[in-house]
Amino acid sequence: MPKTYDISHKVKYYECDMTKQVSVPMLLNLAILVSNMQSEDLQVGDDFVHERGMGWIVLQYDIDIKRRPMVDEVVTLRTMAREFNAFFANRDFVFIDADGEEIIKIHSLFSLMDMEKRKLVRIPKEMVQGYEPEVVKRISRGEAPASITDEDVIAYEKQYGVRYTDIDFNLHVNNSHYFDWMIDVLDVDFLNQHEITTMNIRFEKEVGASDKVTSQAVMNDEQTQSKHRILFADGGLATEAVINWTNK
Amino acid sequence: MPKTYDISHKVKYYECDMTKQVSVPMLLNLAILVSNMQSEDLQVGDDFVHERGMGWIVLQYDIDIKRRPMVDEVVTLRTMAREFNAFFANRDFVFIDADGEEIIKIHSLFSLMDMEKRKLVRIPKEMVQGYEPEVVKRISRGEAPASITDEDVIAYEKQYGVRYTDIDFNLHVNNSHYFDWMIDVLDVDFLNQHEITTMNIRFEKEVGASDKVTSQAVMNDEQTQSKHRILFADGGLATEAVINWTNK
Repeated sequence: MPKTYDISHKVKYYECDMTKQVSVPMLLNLAILVSNMQSEDLQVGDDFVHERGMGWIVLQYDIDIKRRPMVDEVVTLRTMAREFNAFFANRDFVFIDADGEEIIKIHSLFSLMDMEKRKLVRIPKEMVQGYEPEVVKRISRGEAPASITDEDVIAYEKQYGVRYTDIDFNLHVNNSHYFDWMIDVLDVDFLNQHEITTMNIRFEKEVGASDKVTSQAVMNDEQTQSKHRILFADGGLATEAVINWTNK
Repeated sequence: MPKTYDISHKVKYYECDMTKQVSVPMLLNLAILVSNMQSEDLQVGDDFVHERGMGWIVLQYDIDIKRRPMVDEVVTLRTMAREFNAFFANRDFVFIDADGEEIIKIHSLFSLMDMEKRKLVRIPKEMVQGYEPEVVKRISRGEAPASITDEDVIAYEKQYGVRYTDIDFNLHVNNSHYFDWMIDVLDVDFLNQHEITTMNIRFEKEVGASDKVTSQAVMNDEQTQSKHRILFADGGLATEAVINWTNK
């Protein structure tokens, strides 16, 4: 059984958007926070990884939102490294409210990268021993988000420049900002009248410090599903996502 | 003597920029966090203010940085409502490290606004009784930042669109984002080689949800001081600032 790790977190005002709920980008920051803390606790944290010239890369998030926590609410953030094979790791996150209700679930797929050579490396056995995941031959990668096709009408498009404060220690854009770009491109009125129920996002290529990107989105006729992509200036694909929406 | 209020805060990875120190915008979020917590503690918090149709508005920050806290560092965040008159409040913030060193000091000037009528209102006596500030006739407003003049060469300029996640509960841009715009406009190499020592910022007019703004900056020949302004699309002034820099 994978080791679970819990922290208690009181939602700060600056983690919320105008709905007084934790913003979608911040949900991902909180998930990574608790997984970093578990890794530190098991002594396979940043120091362990960086000494070996490695870094964790997120490949995919599958996010299921019953409701987002409100400002000042105290939630339990839980994580476990559920399933590992030689090169990939599935990690789960659960946000649990004071009534014990699982209000957010996130499945994620990570890999470990040699930061110099920019290629995948085997997950060290100390990590497997630490997290105690189920060790499998083939890892379930989950479904990829449906792509925007030539038949789709791109109704939403905006350019974004990477900002100095978007960049993290690894000199890449902190993952949470992809969500800023994907959500901001939509209509404010739509955002105020709808809530995300599920979100499936796949990261193809990291956005760097000096990049300019284009965020594009397509909405279905029923306004229940949007497809998104983030493109580099040369048209190359950085990220794809599908978001399902419900009326408030 | 004004009541002081302290919280202990462990720096999260997502509060830091690429230098592994708390980003400048996040310093201001943390300051407002501790002042909100003091207000709640004294029962003159958000509920008290919003029931009366009022809201606090920041007019000015004077920031003095010895060093910024590092990721995982635990710091004490201290605040006190130092000086009030009928319409204005001076509030101080201090960041104190584990050695008891005061590493950041912030003086701020706030006023209380009728959110409907958009005009200043008298600070209620319950607040004065709660915070126990020094009550004065005339409040020291501090020096205004020097403005960019017609003789200055505007070497840095960028347009920014307000993003959905920039907006807070009051439907205005969270103050911290003005710092994003002012810092991001400068050169990345300059930012990596320099540190802010002091920053004086005055807010003239709030930026709203649908605004597009221009961030402009002028650097002196010695590269020790930059002057900044944030302009609305119609050329109107939102914010002015002066930042002093030192070599790393």
